[in-house]
Amino acid sequence: MNKIERMNEFIKKSEYDAVLAISMENVYYLSDAWILTQKAIPDRLAVVIWPREGDPIFVVCTIEESLARDQSWIDDIRGYVEFETSPIDLVADVLEESGLSRGNMGYEEHYLTAFYYKQLIGRLPEAKISGCEDLFNKVRMVKTNEEVEILSQAAHTTDKSIWNAFTGSKLGDTERQIGERMHTNLLKGGADNLAFLVLGSGDTAKQAHPSPRSIVPQSGDILRIDFGGQFRGYYSDLARTAVFGKASDYQRDVYRKLWDIHQTVIQNASPGASAKSLFLLCRDETIKADLNFFMPHIGHGLGVGLHEYPMLNELTETPLEENMVIAIETFHREPDGTLYHLEDLIVVKPSGGSVVSRVGDWEEILEIT
Amino acid sequence: MNKIERMNEFIKKSEYDAVLAISMENVYYLSDAWILTQKAIPDRLAVVIWPREGDPIFVVCTIEESLARDQSWIDDIRGYVEFETSPIDLVADVLEESGLSRGNMGYEEHYLTAFYYKQLIGRLPEAKISGCEDLFNKVRMVKTNEEVEILSQAAHTTDKSIWNAFTGSKLGDTERQIGERMHTNLLKGGADNLAFLVLGSGDTAKQAHPSPRSIVPQSGDILRIDFGGQFRGYYSDLARTAVFGKASDYQRDVYRKLWDIHQTVIQNASPGASAKSLFLLCRDETIKADLNFFMPHIGHGLGVGLHEYPMLNELTETPLEENMVIAIETFHREPDGTLYHLEDLIVVKPSGGSVVSRVGDWEEILEIT
Repeated sequence: MNKIERMNEFIKKSEYDAVLAISMENVYYLSDAWILTQKAIPDRLAVVIWPREGDPIFVVCTIEESLARDQSWIDDIRGYVEFETSPIDLVADVLEESGLSRGNMGYEEHYLTAFYYKQLIGRLPEAKISGCEDLFNKVRMVKTNEEVEILSQAAHTTDKSIWNAFTGSKLGDTERQIGERMHTNLLKGGADNLAFLVLGSGDTAKQAHPSPRSIVPQSGDILRIDFGGQFRGYYSDLARTAVFGKASDYQRDVYRKLWDIHQTVIQNASPGASAKSLFLLCRDETIKADLNFFMPHIGHGLGVGLHEYPMLNELTETPLEENMVIAIETFHREPDGTLYHLEDLIVVKPSGGSVVSRVGDWEEILEIT
Repeated sequence: MNKIERMNEFIKKSEYDAVLAISMENVYYLSDAWILTQKAIPDRLAVVIWPREGDPIFVVCTIEESLARDQSWIDDIRGYVEFETSPIDLVADVLEESGLSRGNMGYEEHYLTAFYYKQLIGRLPEAKISGCEDLFNKVRMVKTNEEVEILSQAAHTTDKSIWNAFTGSKLGDTERQIGERMHTNLLKGGADNLAFLVLGSGDTAKQAHPSPRSIVPQSGDILRIDFGGQFRGYYSDLARTAVFGKASDYQRDVYRKLWDIHQTVIQNASPGASAKSLFLLCRDETIKADLNFFMPHIGHGLGVGLHEYPMLNELTETPLEENMVIAIETFHREPDGTLYHLEDLIVVKPSGGSVVSRVGDWEEILEIT
C-alpha cells in the first residue's frame, strides 16, 4: 500500500469527516512538499485538509505556493497572503465550502499552537474538534518499500560516518573535533542536514543530551554519542559507546553484556511480538546481567518523525508488523551515572529484526587510542 | 544591561505577575541551558517561570535535569518524570506554591500547543492567562555586547562560507555540490549546525525556499541562495545572488541597481529611524530604480530566533536602537519570476548600519564560470 492508500484506509476506519495535517512531518508525508519554513517560521502554516470523501486540499502561504505546486501531487492548492489572511481563516473557508464545517474534525493538538487553536474553534463553532495524532501515527507506523529503502540507506550512511570518525580519531583530540568529523562525514555521505549530535565524555557521558565541548577527553573516559541526520525528509538515529585509551576489563565486560542484550532484543523483533513484550524482555535481560535498567522506553519507530509509533515501552501493546522501521536502544547506567548506550535501526522481517545500521564492527567496545 | 536585567526591567513595566518561557529560544535566552530535545521532542517541555518578584524557577524533564543544572545559572530547578507527570502540572504546582495561581500570567501562545494550553487553563482556572510574546520579543530586541559579538562572528563565517563555495565552484557543478561546499565550509568555520540552506537556480530561482537539486545549472541561469547556521544558539542568515557563466549586461545592471538600494537602506539604519521608514525607503528606491518591489518586509532582527523584533515592515513604528542586530534583505522579482536577493547583517550604530557580513566582494554580480 502506498501512503495515500494507507491514509484513506485509516480515515475511513475513523470517526472523522476530515483531518488537518499541520506539522512538517505530516504535511510532507501526505503532500510530498518539503516546506523549509514550516520549521523556521512556524506561524507560516501549511495545512493539508484530508476529507473522508473526496480529494485533499493544500493550504499554503503564497510565498511557498510555487514550491508546493512543483513538489506536491495534490492538485487543489490554496494560497493565503501572510499577515493579511490567517491560514486558519482560509482553512475554515475551505471547510465551509466543502460542507465540513459542522463535521467531526481531527487536528494535531500536539502541534497546533494555542494562538491558532483559539482561532480554529472560534471559526468552527459547530464542528466537533479533537486531536487526531493517533490516526496520523498509525498511518505512518508501517513503512512503504520506498521509505524502508530511504531509512536503511540513511542508517547505513550514519553508521559509516560514526565509524570513520571514531577510527579516524585519537586520544588527544577534542570532543568537538570528533563531532565535526561525524558531521562532515554525514554530509559527504548524502545527508541533507544534521538532525542532532549528542556527544559526551567523562562527566558529560552522564548527561542525556550533551553537546561536544572543546576539551580533550582523558584515557579511560567513556565516549557516548547519539547522532542523526535528515535524508530526503527521513531521520537517522544511532547511538554508540566507545572508550578513550585502553578499555579496562570492567568496561569491556559491561559493554559486552549490553551488546548481548541488544542483540537478543533485536532478534526477537518479529511480527506479532508486542512493543511491550520487547520492553519487558530488555528489562529482564538487563537485570539478569546485573546491569542497571532505568529508561522508560527501549526504542521507537523512525521515519519523517524522530519518535514514531510504536514506542517500545511498558504501555504499548501494539504488535509489530512487517516493514515497521524501529530504532532499538539499549542502555546501562553506571553507579557514578556514566551511560552506556547502543542504538541500531532495524526493519521488522518475518525472521526478526533485520539490522540496517551496521557498517562498523561494534561487537567489542571500540578503543580510541 | 545584561539579559537578566533586561528581563526584569520589562516584566516590571508589564502587567504580568509571572511569565512562562517555553520555546527553545526563550528558554535558552533566559536560562543559558541548551536543551536539544526541545526541538526534537517538543512534548518534553522545558519552562522558565519568571515572576515579577523573586527568582525564576526552571522546570525540566528529569532526563535533562543534570544538563540544566550544569549549564543554567538558575538555582531552583524542578524535574518531572516524563509520561508520569505532565510538565504543565508541575508548572501549575510551582505557581500555586508561589501564590501566583490567581495572578496575571503570560505564556507563549505562538509556541505552546493546544494540548498543553488546554491543560494550563484547566489547572489555573483563577489565573488571567494571555500571550506575552511581545514582552519576550522586546527583551531580546536589543542585544548585549556579547550577543553582538557572537552574531557578528557568525555572519562573518557564513559569508566566508558562501564566498569560498561560490568562487570554488564552476559551470558544470550541480546545485547540490555547491550547497555541500557552503554547508561544509560553515561547519569548518565553527557553526554548530546548519539552520537552512535555500538554493535555487534557473526555474527554482523563482521559488522562495527551494532545496539544492542534483542538476547542473546552465550558462545564464541566476543562482540565488539564502543560508544560515547556528552558532552557540545564535543564527546567521544571509542571501546572495550570482550567475552561471558570463552575466548579461541586463543581469549586471539589475544586480547593480539592487545593490545600490541595499546600500542606501543599510546606511539609513541609524538609531531613531523607524522600521517602517526603512521599509518605505526601500520600497520607494526600488520603484524609482524600475525594479519590482513585492515583499511584505525588508528585514528582521536576528538572534536566538530567526525572525526577531523589529520586523522591517509597513506596520512597525519601532525606532531603531543602538545594538539592534538586523538582517536587511532587498529583493527584485523579474517578469518571469526569477528572484534577485541580497541579505546582510548589520549592527545599528550611531553612524548607521555597520555591516558585519561582508567577507566576499559582492558589489558586482559574481560569475560562476
